[in-house]
Amino acid sequence: MSKIFVDACLGKETPYTPVWMMRQAGRYLPEYMAVRAKAGDFLNLCHNPTMAAEVTLQPVDIVGVDAAIMFSDILVIPDEMGMDLSFVKGEGPKFSDPIKSQEDLDRLLGGKEAADRLTYVYETIKIVREQLADDKALIGFTGAPWTLATYMIEGQGTKTYNICKKMMYTNPELLHNILAKVTEIVKYYLESQIEAGVDVVQIFDSWAAAIEPSKYDEFSWKYMVEIADYIKAKYPHIPIIMFPKGVAAFVEQGLVYGNFDVFGVDWGTPMALAKEKLGEKYVLQGNMEPCRLYSKEATKACVSSLAETMKDGRHIFNLGHGILPDVPVENAKYFVKLCQELSRRD
Amino acid sequence: MSKIFVDACLGKETPYTPVWMMRQAGRYLPEYMAVRAKAGDFLNLCHNPTMAAEVTLQPVDIVGVDAAIMFSDILVIPDEMGMDLSFVKGEGPKFSDPIKSQEDLDRLLGGKEAADRLTYVYETIKIVREQLADDKALIGFTGAPWTLATYMIEGQGTKTYNICKKMMYTNPELLHNILAKVTEIVKYYLESQIEAGVDVVQIFDSWAAAIEPSKYDEFSWKYMVEIADYIKAKYPHIPIIMFPKGVAAFVEQGLVYGNFDVFGVDWGTPMALAKEKLGEKYVLQGNMEPCRLYSKEATKACVSSLAETMKDGRHIFNLGHGILPDVPVENAKYFVKLCQELSRRD
Repeated sequence: MSKIFVDACLGKETPYTPVWMMRQAGRYLPEYMAVRAKAGDFLNLCHNPTMAAEVTLQPVDIVGVDAAIMFSDILVIPDEMGMDLSFVKGEGPKFSDPIKSQEDLDRLLGGKEAADRLTYVYETIKIVREQLADDKALIGFTGAPWTLATYMIEGQGTKTYNICKKMMYTNPELLHNILAKVTEIVKYYLESQIEAGVDVVQIFDSWAAAIEPSKYDEFSWKYMVEIADYIKAKYPHIPIIMFPKGVAAFVEQGLVYGNFDVFGVDWGTPMALAKEKLGEKYVLQGNMEPCRLYSKEATKACVSSLAETMKDGRHIFNLGHGILPDVPVENAKYFVKLCQELSRRD
Repeated sequence: MSKIFVDACLGKETPYTPVWMMRQAGRYLPEYMAVRAKAGDFLNLCHNPTMAAEVTLQPVDIVGVDAAIMFSDILVIPDEMGMDLSFVKGEGPKFSDPIKSQEDLDRLLGGKEAADRLTYVYETIKIVREQLADDKALIGFTGAPWTLATYMIEGQGTKTYNICKKMMYTNPELLHNILAKVTEIVKYYLESQIEAGVDVVQIFDSWAAAIEPSKYDEFSWKYMVEIADYIKAKYPHIPIIMFPKGVAAFVEQGLVYGNFDVFGVDWGTPMALAKEKLGEKYVLQGNMEPCRLYSKEATKACVSSLAETMKDGRHIFNLGHGILPDVPVENAKYFVKLCQELSRRD
């Protein structure tokens, strides 16, 4: 059965423009909170395929989105490489022993060996696949090598990225070695996700904007291109979505290359500008400001405007960043329904 | 005596392109740390004109910049409005009682009455003025109404700005009332700074990029325009620098208006792009990525490239954001000297 979401990613005409929301399996849903409470901590939930599958499916049933995205965290990769990941309440993720040297990097698992340890992710996908309706798509994902590297080097989230950027400007070779090692794992990781049953993959470069424009290609984009080339050579029918947050406005300056199907536009970039610069090469995804979900009126104004700007298609509705935990579920449902209705072409 | 920095702000030809660094009076300088230790906490330093003047002058003497910027904090305004400001170690600024309603706002001091309480700032300026060399400029500053409002509503720094943005989309009237009240104070505040002796004023809209592009004019830019109009009507010879971080790439979409002389370009925006979009209307300030200061080689590559891009003038060298605490002072000196040398026109 043809899936509207997959067709839209490939630029085919669809009866309406499909919609999903980043972080749609998340804390705004009471049903998610119930499973999360049962799981104990966040990593337990990632490691438990039955529960992870359950929360993956919730937004499809409750909110009516056109695609599910497997529930997991981007940091399971460095965790399985041998870095000790924990989530400290109120502080976010922490690695006890961040990478400072080539020796630190060499101690970590790489390649297929690391990717093969992520069995709980592949199990989650298989369970979701069995339960998901035939006309809905399942999205797999990974963090971009750069975004993963920031945590592996800083040991946690950061405002200034000064440790990674000190490395970028004083020891770029080590940074490239880290990025290359992660890239290798990501290739196998996405491949295994596809083999387990995902229809589409998204690469999250959440911290893209932490790199100055003139260095972005060298330290992030080109690694994602390498990953896309690897996947497309084996699975040309699987669409690849790229979400490099905060860089769309200058992306024309040399980044309009690479084997991606969809470019995720963050809410900080006007969609009309993204369309002008990127719309010919990529299908565009996005980009309602997530805080508009606090108000139905603000939601309607934005969805109407996006539907008008993107009326020629080559579009997937989404938020321009993750949904926030205190948004009313009712408003999320309203957003999804409105996107599907206002873009209807039949 | 003519000041190169002031001339450059007004677009006049100068023998070389002047340079200063955001946060140049800061923790990377051991001399600053010594005064800071004497002062006790950060707010004490802001409140003590003798010590604040001392750290204001340090980078002029030690690093050789062309302008001093008065040492203070943008949050002294809400503090003097009656909000209880404190700096919690490792967590940043906090207000114990953030604004939730019109009643909360009405309780706070406004207008000239609030601005007149900032005597320690005006005292600092007078002391610096006496000690600063005649050919060096003194920059006064304020936070933009929007940036100040984010702290007044959230009660602290935030990653998501979800409380202010919930207000933006569900109760815009209250947000506008807050912005208007702060705008009124800022007018008197900058006026008093000018009367005390500053040569130039800068408005920091540090959290500009937290507003989606289509709302930026309504909730931030237009208030800064109002402030600039007020100042320019009384002091047409005083240049106004605008630093709206993270919005330069889309600023052509309706924001190229307002009585500003200089547009501060953050490091996330390619200078060539900023020049193309904004260079005719404004002198441009910026924009080396601050982390390049970890390496002389990386610093040189960037300064050379900026000097080339801006070789026709209408430029002020600066970093594209504040200098980081762990940068070697030697590299800061190297940066300043290189800017002055590579742009020399005589």
